[in-house]
Amino acid sequence: MSNNIIKMAQKAKQASLILATVSSSEKNKALKLMAKALLAKSAYLISENKKDLNAAKKADYAQALIDRLVLNDKRIHEMAECLIDTANLPDLIGETMAVYKRPNGLVIKKVRCPIGVVGIIYESRPNVTSDCIGLCLKSGNSVILKGGKEAVNSNNAIFKVLKDVLKMTKVPAESIQMIASTDRDSMLKMLGLTDYVDLIVPRGGEALIRFVGENSRIPVIKHYKGVCHTYVSHKANLKMAEDICFNAKVQRPGVCNAMETMLVHKQAAKKFLPVMIERFQKAGVEIRGDVKTRAIVKGIKAAQEEDWPTEYLDLILAVKVVDSLKEAIDHINTYGSRHSDTIVTESKTEAEEFFRSVDSACLYQNASTRFTDGYQFGFGAEVGISTDKIHVRGPMGIEGLTSYKYTVYGKGQVRS
Amino acid sequence: MSNNIIKMAQKAKQASLILATVSSSEKNKALKLMAKALLAKSAYLISENKKDLNAAKKADYAQALIDRLVLNDKRIHEMAECLIDTANLPDLIGETMAVYKRPNGLVIKKVRCPIGVVGIIYESRPNVTSDCIGLCLKSGNSVILKGGKEAVNSNNAIFKVLKDVLKMTKVPAESIQMIASTDRDSMLKMLGLTDYVDLIVPRGGEALIRFVGENSRIPVIKHYKGVCHTYVSHKANLKMAEDICFNAKVQRPGVCNAMETMLVHKQAAKKFLPVMIERFQKAGVEIRGDVKTRAIVKGIKAAQEEDWPTEYLDLILAVKVVDSLKEAIDHINTYGSRHSDTIVTESKTEAEEFFRSVDSACLYQNASTRFTDGYQFGFGAEVGISTDKIHVRGPMGIEGLTSYKYTVYGKGQVRS
Repeated sequence: MSNNIIKMAQKAKQASLILATVSSSEKNKALKLMAKALLAKSAYLISENKKDLNAAKKADYAQALIDRLVLNDKRIHEMAECLIDTANLPDLIGETMAVYKRPNGLVIKKVRCPIGVVGIIYESRPNVTSDCIGLCLKSGNSVILKGGKEAVNSNNAIFKVLKDVLKMTKVPAESIQMIASTDRDSMLKMLGLTDYVDLIVPRGGEALIRFVGENSRIPVIKHYKGVCHTYVSHKANLKMAEDICFNAKVQRPGVCNAMETMLVHKQAAKKFLPVMIERFQKAGVEIRGDVKTRAIVKGIKAAQEEDWPTEYLDLILAVKVVDSLKEAIDHINTYGSRHSDTIVTESKTEAEEFFRSVDSACLYQNASTRFTDGYQFGFGAEVGISTDKIHVRGPMGIEGLTSYKYTVYGKGQVRS
Repeated sequence: MSNNIIKMAQKAKQASLILATVSSSEKNKALKLMAKALLAKSAYLISENKKDLNAAKKADYAQALIDRLVLNDKRIHEMAECLIDTANLPDLIGETMAVYKRPNGLVIKKVRCPIGVVGIIYESRPNVTSDCIGLCLKSGNSVILKGGKEAVNSNNAIFKVLKDVLKMTKVPAESIQMIASTDRDSMLKMLGLTDYVDLIVPRGGEALIRFVGENSRIPVIKHYKGVCHTYVSHKANLKMAEDICFNAKVQRPGVCNAMETMLVHKQAAKKFLPVMIERFQKAGVEIRGDVKTRAIVKGIKAAQEEDWPTEYLDLILAVKVVDSLKEAIDHINTYGSRHSDTIVTESKTEAEEFFRSVDSACLYQNASTRFTDGYQFGFGAEVGISTDKIHVRGPMGIEGLTSYKYTVYGKGQVRS
């Protein structure tokens, strides 16, 4: 098995050198043929998916997980759409990012190019298979996929359909690879192939991402969790603040860009908290407040120290009253996850101070943290979100899947 | 000791949040005061350096290493100059890199910001201490330095002088840190501090860099070695090719951007090789040729398979005759180190094919590989050279020490 993984990675690397030179129109043609093939083979995909669903039901998996596993006509249609959307995105490869003319006459161009081979490690949702193949091919990268065991039949089927398509195109078939085995040993093997794999992107729960982050010798782009904050200043439009906080907590609580802690300036707290907390409670949100919050709104649970760094992914909210913008900033930098944080204020000065001082990927003035997302940012599709500061930060789209090279034009220059 | 390193890293992280908000003029003031202090304290620096030199002589270190260790008035002057040059570079922090206006009215700005805390691990040359402190402060990053044991007194002295200066400035003194211990255990400890250190840059020999790359849990920017090629096409100006090859091999053979293998098209070989090889031999270069090279020039050593991926760092050159541009490209992609490679040709088509297909950081048409260098590229100072494809590739200047954040301006937008 481990020899197979090395051979697979070697083939992916070889193919990446060819793929890097394939034209935009050939790549887009392949993506559109892939979309067609998914639709044409939907009966096959659905029957393979049934095997995974049956196994999941036998294993008594949670309904939420089973829901994520399902492939039906609607979902297959969405997968095809995503491939077509990806084909329609601009091709960044070959773009001249900068030109430097040197006193000795050398002309140095910084030219965008693919990274090479990208490894994607993911859980349950089978659409990730086609979405990531699309994004990697568009950006000129070979991709090695390793999906979760609960979706193994669905993933293999999607992969087979897409790989068959490549035979009709100039995209080398070996540029997409899937590791059949779903065990951790094969993952560990993959994470050590520094000679052939240039980047690893894990998608899934915190446990998977930590395992990848702690065991990879290849660079990893990741976020562990999203402990997102909204700070309501005394200079806020409080009605706007209420709507933003409600949206950030309630609209989809199980995702990384949902709010987990609400901070309120002491001068706004008495007016804002009773109304806001009542609205939250009516929506089923459990509030955990600090001493000052509980002095204003009675009968709510006390927040403990361990609440501040917690990602609830649920209808639970920690609330704290702060004395100043500085205290809010310090709280976020201490307990946050460097993902997404909002200030609600009408003051440009306050917002700029917040933007300069909070060490997070995405900072908002007067908008919900829920907008941290590749589609919402206009990046087209999304590979994931990074809270790292190296290579790519925030939503990772096609651009995050590129590197660059310097091409230098001389007339015989030598170094003296 | 290991608790000390954690505390040091925590202080560096705390300081980085303040440093990120310090103005350009305050940072530049600190850099200029540092330059003055080095000059004012040169007698102290030279006397501390003497201790290292005496120890090195006792330990019978190679003369080349002792040469790199020496601090004298000239070198201290160069260190001061480097700090002033760094002060005079533009400050990239706060720069708006892109603006996206979304249909819902959100305005998303991509704003350049510091990375946070950068760890620099280096060997022997004491000027790295002040150069890297300068580059990190300029780019708003805290820095944790870990130098080699042979320069411990010199490094500590430089560090002390520079740290004292910060007390007179708005740059927090804790933003520069030095790990006093020079053993591998303290390095290992540092390489695991993912909560406080954002990036590691190792500078030194391949053994050090491999140790760091294989043991770090923090992202590492690096290059292991430079196996650089020059390909002389049959469409080359052969006189120009001769000068470029000679410069790339002979001008400074011990560095990573020197040429290690010369590839020559078969149609140019008979005319080019005898003249070129004679010139190399006169300069003391040992030639190791493939069969076809030895058929043209008699009496030279045979190149073995293990010559092709070797970084000699010496007056030795592997030579191979190839049948085509494609064979040259394949050879470089197979045996090269993705560092710097040159094609000598008058044909734009050939050069573009070479640029598109060779998977290296820096590609040249008609110039010496020796130009791969931050100063030569016009990036001001240089932290190092990257053959990775993540974050930064090629010469790493100030820009490579930056990240970005997204600041989003809303008017109450929520996600539906």
